[in-house]
Amino acid sequence: MFKATPASIPPPNARLALPDPKGPDARPWLHPLNPLQFILRAAEIYPNKIALVDDKVVYDFKTWCQRTQNLAYALTQAGIKPGDRVAVIAPNCPMAADTFYGVLAVQGILCLINTRLKPSDVAYILDHSGAKIILIDHEFTHLVPNNTNVPVVICKDSGKQGDPYEDFLTAGRRFSQERGWSGLVPSADENASAILCYTSGTTGRPKGVVTTLRGSYLAAVANAYESKIHSNSTYLWILPMFHAAGWTFPWSCVFAMGKQITMRTVDYPTIWRHFLHSSVTHYCGAPTVQIGIVNDPAARKLKHSVSAIIAGAAPTASLIGSLEGIGIKPIHVYGLTETYGPFTRNYEQDAWTKMSIHERSQLMARQGHAFATAQNVRVVKVEGSELTDVPRDGKTIGEIVTRGNIVMKEYFRDPEATTKAFRGGSFNSGDLAVMFEDGTVSIVDRQKDIIISGGENISSLSVEQELSSHPDVLEATVVARAHPKWGERPHAFIILKPHISKWHGKHDEFAHALKAHAKKRLPGFAVPEWIQVVSELPKTATGKILKTDLRNMVAKL
Amino acid sequence: MFKATPASIPPPNARLALPDPKGPDARPWLHPLNPLQFILRAAEIYPNKIALVDDKVVYDFKTWCQRTQNLAYALTQAGIKPGDRVAVIAPNCPMAADTFYGVLAVQGILCLINTRLKPSDVAYILDHSGAKIILIDHEFTHLVPNNTNVPVVICKDSGKQGDPYEDFLTAGRRFSQERGWSGLVPSADENASAILCYTSGTTGRPKGVVTTLRGSYLAAVANAYESKIHSNSTYLWILPMFHAAGWTFPWSCVFAMGKQITMRTVDYPTIWRHFLHSSVTHYCGAPTVQIGIVNDPAARKLKHSVSAIIAGAAPTASLIGSLEGIGIKPIHVYGLTETYGPFTRNYEQDAWTKMSIHERSQLMARQGHAFATAQNVRVVKVEGSELTDVPRDGKTIGEIVTRGNIVMKEYFRDPEATTKAFRGGSFNSGDLAVMFEDGTVSIVDRQKDIIISGGENISSLSVEQELSSHPDVLEATVVARAHPKWGERPHAFIILKPHISKWHGKHDEFAHALKAHAKKRLPGFAVPEWIQVVSELPKTATGKILKTDLRNMVAKL
Repeated sequence: MFKATPASIPPPNARLALPDPKGPDARPWLHPLNPLQFILRAAEIYPNKIALVDDKVVYDFKTWCQRTQNLAYALTQAGIKPGDRVAVIAPNCPMAADTFYGVLAVQGILCLINTRLKPSDVAYILDHSGAKIILIDHEFTHLVPNNTNVPVVICKDSGKQGDPYEDFLTAGRRFSQERGWSGLVPSADENASAILCYTSGTTGRPKGVVTTLRGSYLAAVANAYESKIHSNSTYLWILPMFHAAGWTFPWSCVFAMGKQITMRTVDYPTIWRHFLHSSVTHYCGAPTVQIGIVNDPAARKLKHSVSAIIAGAAPTASLIGSLEGIGIKPIHVYGLTETYGPFTRNYEQDAWTKMSIHERSQLMARQGHAFATAQNVRVVKVEGSELTDVPRDGKTIGEIVTRGNIVMKEYFRDPEATTKAFRGGSFNSGDLAVMFEDGTVSIVDRQKDIIISGGENISSLSVEQELSSHPDVLEATVVARAHPKWGERPHAFIILKPHISKWHGKHDEFAHALKAHAKKRLPGFAVPEWIQVVSELPKTATGKILKTDLRNMVAKL
Repeated sequence: MFKATPASIPPPNARLALPDPKGPDARPWLHPLNPLQFILRAAEIYPNKIALVDDKVVYDFKTWCQRTQNLAYALTQAGIKPGDRVAVIAPNCPMAADTFYGVLAVQGILCLINTRLKPSDVAYILDHSGAKIILIDHEFTHLVPNNTNVPVVICKDSGKQGDPYEDFLTAGRRFSQERGWSGLVPSADENASAILCYTSGTTGRPKGVVTTLRGSYLAAVANAYESKIHSNSTYLWILPMFHAAGWTFPWSCVFAMGKQITMRTVDYPTIWRHFLHSSVTHYCGAPTVQIGIVNDPAARKLKHSVSAIIAGAAPTASLIGSLEGIGIKPIHVYGLTETYGPFTRNYEQDAWTKMSIHERSQLMARQGHAFATAQNVRVVKVEGSELTDVPRDGKTIGEIVTRGNIVMKEYFRDPEATTKAFRGGSFNSGDLAVMFEDGTVSIVDRQKDIIISGGENISSLSVEQELSSHPDVLEATVVARAHPKWGERPHAFIILKPHISKWHGKHDEFAHALKAHAKKRLPGFAVPEWIQVVSELPKTATGKILKTDLRNMVAKL
């Protein structure tokens, strides 16, 4: 039976309220939006309800809340001042969850670093962000340069005394002298920076996306509302928290006063154990993760309702069918790190219930409409600083742009990139899309993923969708490869379904069969010229396929 | 089959977006919170989904959205400028619903006037608010002084051409010259005033509560989230929209993209017809209305889930039992006009499932904890401008105070009352309460409703709760009556259940029996000295009992 450290236990009669805003701008009818409020409210309403668990630790809301306060004081003791960056290098684990509250409580900026980056990229981010302290999981200490001047706190993820992170928290509790929450001063400015998340940067140096307290609050509330997360929900952490701040779900779950379960790695048997035995109701993940889930040998029809929030790419018809088949409800959203995760959602229409799964999944694959609390989304032609909406014809390709409360504030220390991203007064996503008559947005491709063949634009996404509909294909990805006559032609990488053995040693025959399949569904110029069967694909930590790597690979062929 | 007026039909390819904020403060990562956004988003996502119906008209979102735009242009044509007050005198009906959007679209301030007020009070409000136009339902024209200089638009609630309100909208559409939403300029300041709602004013002149766009947005989102209203929900309008702006539900339902059904009067058979045949899932109402619902002859066990959002007074054990018995889930919230309606909620605890309905209802009767998006709630002793929290002992009485985003901005043109209401930097609710160890707030009484007898404070509420537990009592209300020896003593007014005949002509015997019942449950000094059986009680339009009237009545005895 796990016991939290003594420092994790709140004093009796702890007052769970932040100090009221002070100063000339303070108004009794206004309080700055700040997701930090969520954990105090949850601890007040449901002190003894399980809030955060992993395979070793269990914290209820009052205990977890105290731990985030301890973290805040520990950071203060370590010299962290408002606006300072606190770097976190960790898998999904309780420490990472703590930082979403503890860092905000000292007006710090939380900089979550992808654990799958190379040490040189991590070094670049630590340097560029000017991190003042590093909280790091014991498995990832090799990512930090040995000669770093920045103080490092290692977490063994044990929850036990003697774990350096636990000792750090305990020291924070001692330092606080039981001043509690009223001894901390949250930001009076809701537009202050909250999170600094570096984009995985498939090309060039990573860029640091800065988001605000206000945006985080509004996005988190929207995610709880749209996903229907409530106090009886259990959220399973499959999506890494360092990816776009976990799409704000570290806050959504606490706003909802629901339970969170963290897992250090994406491990399908463990996911299924949780699905079947931990009353999981919600999780987020890219399609590639969803494919892993539905194809795991442990997969079976679920007796309770589970919602899968899907982004990163559009789910295919086959994936939607498989998810629904086992009782998982897909919620297709779309967004970027720059939009706090989701800023559009595919909204189901009544008419869809009468459709075949194939017809319906075509519509479900669209990125849809503006999310709750998002401002509107547009598809535009960009000329200079002029943004002109494309016609709603489902054909004319433009760039997705958006603006408003759930758009990042800036790229950290990069005014040039910021100015470029906000050309025309909206955030330019870099994603190419069409808009249909009903106002739904449908991504054609990333600007850099489009294949231009003999003057024709080929959406690599649409080719992938059609290749994935072949019954033997698990996953398909398509990139441009130079071609002497057509300029570029599609090159497809295919992973076969694990139980399919008939194509062993017959990849040429398979390529022939798949081309025939594609010819029935695509214009001739879009049928891949090359089909290559592979056993795995290079992916980012978040399950996005690294098309840049694949392009580099085919460039050498 | 109802057909909307031609002017209600939007043009093809209508662009459903407000113009982007302009000016030096405009930021691409910020948009002013404004509930007007909800209807444009709903019309974009679900253009053909039923949005608003009454017994005559049916509007889908695209049509309703166009009508609110027409209203905005009609108001502009009538000379309404930003900050101007638009008075609305109407029962729950489509016109009233329109104004929650049309008025905000011209930066007007919506002043909803209680239709049950006396003409002299209405005249006072029209004068005090400085209303620039009056939109009035045909049944209430007698409330407006004949000699008014203010333009009046009468609505016959027909939805048909020839109805003056419809002609007003049609003229607005013509005036717009199809400039659409981009021709309207919503407020760039989210703290601009949105609603002016006069409190029913049981004593003195009504006070005008001013709320903001930001507060309305955040309260509406909170209400949708807490009540779990979604696009498949149907909300039945029992609570008047003029009561605290319908607790922001006119916006919550549209944020949720759900359906609203309006009813001109609170009529129990009609409510039951809707419960049974219109797939109603949600409604709001004071306990007195809920009592009427569960006691109606048409009441029966519902086959689908309905949630009742209850405020105005705490639901009794007997009411909770009756509601749950027919499948209605009570959601007990608490608030005032000054807090946009709900700002606390009674949150269910796991441990309650093991309790008896009586035990559980005692806990459910508490006002609970701070609502989603509300700042914290306190119970304090007020001395000068010092607010000191009472101990969490469930005994010490203090005043409920709150602050933050869902607190009103001011009393209109009443700086003195505003200053008084915000003593100590928080909004002073005037409600007396205790706080329990678990942080739940429980109202003891309104400051003015407390009965002081021989130096003892008697909560009229707690006496009412115990009287209501008598099996023959439908409704009980208790006020202070002067007493030569004790200063004050409780006087109880009782409505017997309609099917109870045994007390006909035997009210003295009943009083005797009820006193005996009360003596077992209350301290001697709290047992009513007088018990009076009545057939009805004076109530405000919102179902709140007018204790002032009762006090005046007993003062003459």
